Order: sequence, then C-alpha cells, then structure tokens
Amino acid sequence: MSVLPRGFKTAAVAAGIKKSGLDLGLLYSEQPAAAAAVFTKNAFPAAPVIVSRQHMMDSGGVLRAVLVNAGNANAATGAAGLAAARSSAEQVAGRLGCKTEEVFVASTGVIGRPLPVHRISKAIPELATRLQDGDPEGFARAIMTTDTFAKIAARESAGVRIVGFAKGAGMIHPDMATMLAFVITDAKADSAVLDRALRYAVDRSFHAVTVDGDTSTNDVVLVLANGASGIALEESAFRDLLLDVCVDLAKAIARDGEGATKFVEFNIEGAPSDEAARHIGRTIARSPLVKTAIYGCDPNWGRVLAAIGNAGVPLSSSDIGLYIDDISLIGGDLTAAAEKMKSKEIRFRVSLNSGAGRARVWTCDLTEGYIRINADYTS
Amino acid sequence: MSVLPRGFKTAAVAAGIKKSGLDLGLLYSEQPAAAAAVFTKNAFPAAPVIVSRQHMMDSGGVLRAVLVNAGNANAATGAAGLAAARSSAEQVAGRLGCKTEEVFVASTGVIGRPLPVHRISKAIPELATRLQDGDPEGFARAIMTTDTFAKIAARESAGVRIVGFAKGAGMIHPDMATMLAFVITDAKADSAVLDRALRYAVDRSFHAVTVDGDTSTNDVVLVLANGASGIALEESAFRDLLLDVCVDLAKAIARDGEGATKFVEFNIEGAPSDEAARHIGRTIARSPLVKTAIYGCDPNWGRVLAAIGNAGVPLSSSDIGLYIDDISLIGGDLTAAAEKMKSKEIRFRVSLNSGAGRARVWTCDLTEGYIRINADYTS
Repeated sequence: MSVLPRGFKTAAVAAGIKKSGLDLGLLYSEQPAAAAAVFTKNAFPAAPVIVSRQHMMDSGGVLRAVLVNAGNANAATGAAGLAAARSSAEQVAGRLGCKTEEVFVASTGVIGRPLPVHRISKAIPELATRLQDGDPEGFARAIMTTDTFAKIAARESAGVRIVGFAKGAGMIHPDMATMLAFVITDAKADSAVLDRALRYAVDRSFHAVTVDGDTSTNDVVLVLANGASGIALEESAFRDLLLDVCVDLAKAIARDGEGATKFVEFNIEGAPSDEAARHIGRTIARSPLVKTAIYGCDPNWGRVLAAIGNAGVPLSSSDIGLYIDDISLIGGDLTAAAEKMKSKEIRFRVSLNSGAGRARVWTCDLTEGYIRINADYTS
Repeated sequence: MSVLPRGFKTAAVAAGIKKSGLDLGLLYSEQPAAAAAVFTKNAFPAAPVIVSRQHMMDSGGVLRAVLVNAGNANAATGAAGLAAARSSAEQVAGRLGCKTEEVFVASTGVIGRPLPVHRISKAIPELATRLQDGDPEGFARAIMTTDTFAKIAARESAGVRIVGFAKGAGMIHPDMATMLAFVITDAKADSAVLDRALRYAVDRSFHAVTVDGDTSTNDVVLVLANGASGIALEESAFRDLLLDVCVDLAKAIARDGEGATKFVEFNIEGAPSDEAARHIGRTIARSPLVKTAIYGCDPNWGRVLAAIGNAGVPLSSSDIGLYIDDISLIGGDLTAAAEKMKSKEIRFRVSLNSGAGRARVWTCDLTEGYIRINADYTS
C-alpha cells in the first residue's frame, strides 16, 4: 500500500465503461496544486486532451482534481466528445466545490465511440464519497486497459513525498503513446519549476520507452504539487526525485508491453550526440526483427547492426561494439549470449566509437501475444 | 514459364549456402547491357553492395552478368567479405569471358557470417554450363530466403520484352529493405534513360511497399537493357513498361510478407502534397496496431486515424474520410466493413481534404506467423 503525499486523495469505481472492473478514477488535492503537463503530439488529440489543455491555461496552471476513465478514449468523437469531456469536468467541480477549469480530464480505450457520459455522471457521487478512504491501488487499476499490472511508483526524500501512477502497455513510443501518467507530490513548487522538471524527466523516462512504434491520440503526463509538506526542494533535487518516479513508471510500462515476455534495455554510447544516441536507440528498440530475435533468444546481432544503419545517423566509425552484459556479440561467444538472453531482463550495450553521445532506451520483446491482443481488441 | 528477353540467359544451382534448395543464381547477357541500379540507404551496406556499386562505376554502367546468392548476406563481414565478393565476380568473369567490373554481385540471408566462397567457386562452372538451358523460374527460386513463392513479372510491348525477378518478404520497407530485384529487357536504352526510368519506377513501386518497417544492408534494384530487340521505345513508354513490371514485383513482395494472410493497399488522397501522402501512407502501413486489426478483420478505424495523426503532417482539415472499397468506416456500416475485411485483398481509401496529393502504399497484415518466422530465423 503506497502512502499518498499529504493533502491528496484518490478513489476508483466500476462505472460500466469497460465490460467489468474499475474504470473511473478520481484524484483530488485538498488545496490548489501547481500543475504541469506534457500532451500527445498526435495531430488528432482526443477531446479530453483538448479540454484539459484549455483548463490548464484558464486556471493558470492550478488544478484541484483529475478524472480519468478507461474503456473509451473519447477520441475522434467531434463536438459531442468535447461536450462530454467538459460536462464530466463540470460535474466533478460541482461535487468537489472547485472551478471547472481546475479539473483535468483524461480518457483511454477504444477510439471513435461516444463516451458514455451518463455512466460517468451516475458514478461521480460515489467516486467523491470514496475519496475519504484514499485508495492508490484502486486508482492505478481504474486507468488500466490492456495492462496486466497496476503501475505505481513512490519516493520520499527530505520530508517530501512523491507518488506516480501510470497506464500503458501496447502502443507505447517516444513522444507519448497510449499512456497516461499522473504524478503527485506534496513538495512546494511553482508551475515554472514543475514544467522544467517535468520536461527533463519525461525526456529521460517515458520518451525512452518504445513498445510498438505507434503513438496515440490521448496521452498525457501530468504532475501536481500541492505544497502540503511545506518544503521546497532545490530545483535539481526535485527534478531528480521526479525523474526517479518517472523512470520507475516508464520501465513498468516497457515491462508490461502487450504480449511481452522480456524487458529490454539498450544503452547506446559513443554516438555523435545524445540526440543521435537516442534516435539510434529508438530505431533499434522499434525494430520488429530485433524484438522477435530477442523473443527467440537469438543473439542475431546482424539485425541490431542493420537497425543502427537504418537510423540514418552518420557515424564516423564502422567499428561498432555490441554487448549483452559483458559478452561481446560481434565475434564473441554467441552460445553464452544466447544463454543470457533466456533471462527476463536483457541489457544491450551498443558502442559506436563516434563521439560522446549516450542514451538509454527501454522496450520489450515482440511475441505472438502482441498479435493476439491487438487482432482482437475492440470486440 | 516466362520467356526471357532476347540475348539473356539465366541459371541456378544448389551450392550448399542454404541448408537445402537452389541458392545461387546467374544472369547473363550475351552482349554488353546498359545498367542502372538503386542501392540500400542503410549506413552499413553489405560487401556485395559496395563491390557492385564500384563495378558499375568502373564499367561505365555496362554489365554482362549478375551473380546472386541466398542464405548468406555477406554483410558486416569486413575486409574478408569484400574480398569474397570481388573473388566471386572475378571467377564469373573468368568463366564467361568478360571483365570483372561487368559482373554485378548480390547476396541475401543471414548477416555477420563469412560467405562460404569456396562453395560458390565450386558451383560456378556448373552454373555457367546451365546457362544453356535458360531457367527463369530457377533463378527466381535461387534468390528466395523466407519467400514462399518465386516472384517473376513479364511484359511485352511494341516488340520489346521485359522480365523482372524479385525476392523479399519480411523486412520490406520504403528505401530498400531485404529485397533484391533484377529487371532485364531487350529494349535499346542508354544508362541515363535507364537511370531516370528506374528511379521513377522504384519510387512508385518498391518504395510503396512496407512489411515491417525494417530496412536492410543488402538491397538492390537493378535493371539491364541489352538492346537485343533493336528497338528503342519512347522514354515515357519505356518508363511505364518498367513501372508495370516493378509494380507487379512490389505487390508480390507485399503479398508474400512474412506470415501474411492478407494483401493491403492504402490509397491516400487529398494530402497537402504527393510526398505528404506517401509519408502518411507509409506511417499507416507500418503501424503494428493497424496491421494486427486487419489480421483480426476488425474495422478499427480509430487506429488508422491515430496513425495518420502520428505521421506528423499538418493537415488543413480534420474532416477525414476512411473507406474500405465503397464502405465508409467513420459513422458507416462496420458490420459490412468487417465482412469485407475477411477477403484476402483489402483496399483502403483515405481522404484527407487537405490538398491534391496522392499516393498508393502496399503492405500485408501482421500475424503470429511473422513472429514465428523471425524468432527463429538464424537457427
């Protein structure tokens, strides 16, 4: 049982948006919380993304509550979708006694179906009542779609608590994918500090995850700081604390990739720049051929090499080193490498000898399970 | 049985590079043939790509023979790989009585293993002898790796014959992937005309195919014109003839995507430009979520929409039309659409209402078969 930061409460109910199980979560801050968010770059953002972005602007970056549903993305739903998102926020605001623009809404699930807003309306009173209990695990479960486990990360440092919740399994990719993450802290931090810290942390955590190269219409990372601890950390200390929580959540997402049997980390070093390293890392991590070879415990380093070459980054050396832990793959002991690949966690190191750029990227293997889950998701 | 263009011969043998079956093919022109080629853009081109590119420069774009093996890519093989590729070309030249730089070599198969050049040397005499028979099907079979059928396309127009051979199943993607294509014609055409026609045709055929978004170290499209018909077509007529053959081969490659059960065509229209249309088409066709939905016969248009949004192309309208044949997916009859999706060939039309740009892209569905093939390829 995670301990929430002071002044925050969570609740969850089964509102009937999914066929079964918890599907509506509420996060509440007793006092106004400074907020920062990163939104999907998809050209067709879902209604809750549009509405929440507007709310953050209208409220000057101050929030009191977050309402999240799973089972329906409220995306590609036109004017009716926007009205549904706004109406949900209004109802939460009315129940909790705050302003509508202080309510952030998020949705995840199937695209293109009307949000059953009547079910949400009906569930809001009970949801508000349940806030009394606090229920971090319930909130984390309520935002799951194809996730197989709830994702919570927590830290405590110098009197400050920080807790993050995330969902995301398939369709995870740099620049936000079908993933939601909500991080709450009782540290004192203004919106500008939060915003800088969030961008720093997201770049090094969620943007380093790729499951299948797809990105979605709905995705959001939100951080709320209500200052209830009375403590303002040094900006760099706060940034690192936020990064720790985001890395935990990002790894949990990669670990829970749809159909995944293995968690994979690629450490890229010796690239012309950090950006080049990240691009190469993502290209490797997105390659279906690399991901299936990992599933098959096949130290097929030629596929990794082809993926590096496919990234389109000019390298000053063709002397590439590829390692699993300490085992060199090129000209090395492939039997030992194949043995290493049987484990559930695999760490590749890619040494490019072309500069000082580094990056770390996480992914999972590609299996028949991914196909099964996605060939039969809407039905 | 395809009829070869005049003055060309082909042969194939089982040289023992693959575990079994034909794996070494030879293509021979009785007279010097003008040649044009497009090579992989992968940053780590395989030895035969490096050697053949050099040969084309040294010979001034004139070739007499093409030697191709399957089972070993001769990629990431360093100086020994280059020597092996050069030595193979030399031996063919010696046997056929032409210059070494008039021999083009190509390889496909596993990356990072030494090319068994002694097996190739041993097989070349028999290969040269078999040229007498001509054997287009054998040549097409000798270049297969995970392909499930041989790919030959032929046309005859105004007294000119043109025949193309291709291999490629997985790892197919715009900008060349694990695919080889060799097109031969008895038309008269100089290298400049050939080069323009080839770039035109490749852009509209092979570059419109994507199976899994990976690209490889080895890939090449080569066209040879030996002029044996004595006929020089109008450049535009020749270009269209070449395009027809390349489209046939490109579609065959998409149809034979690893594990594929369905052939899929995306027609993109109303994009800001042709280039934007192509980029959007490729993004949709590469999306694992779209490809698994097609496998599941699920008219999940939200995934197509998300993929369009994911392409990063600014559109002036959010009024998107999605159709399977004549059935509208957005707000349309999804039961009828699901029924249509049960067929082996599916045609999507995407109408973007943002300009006059158009493109056509081919792919296949993503199935458990792809995973099985690729989790266990090198062993």
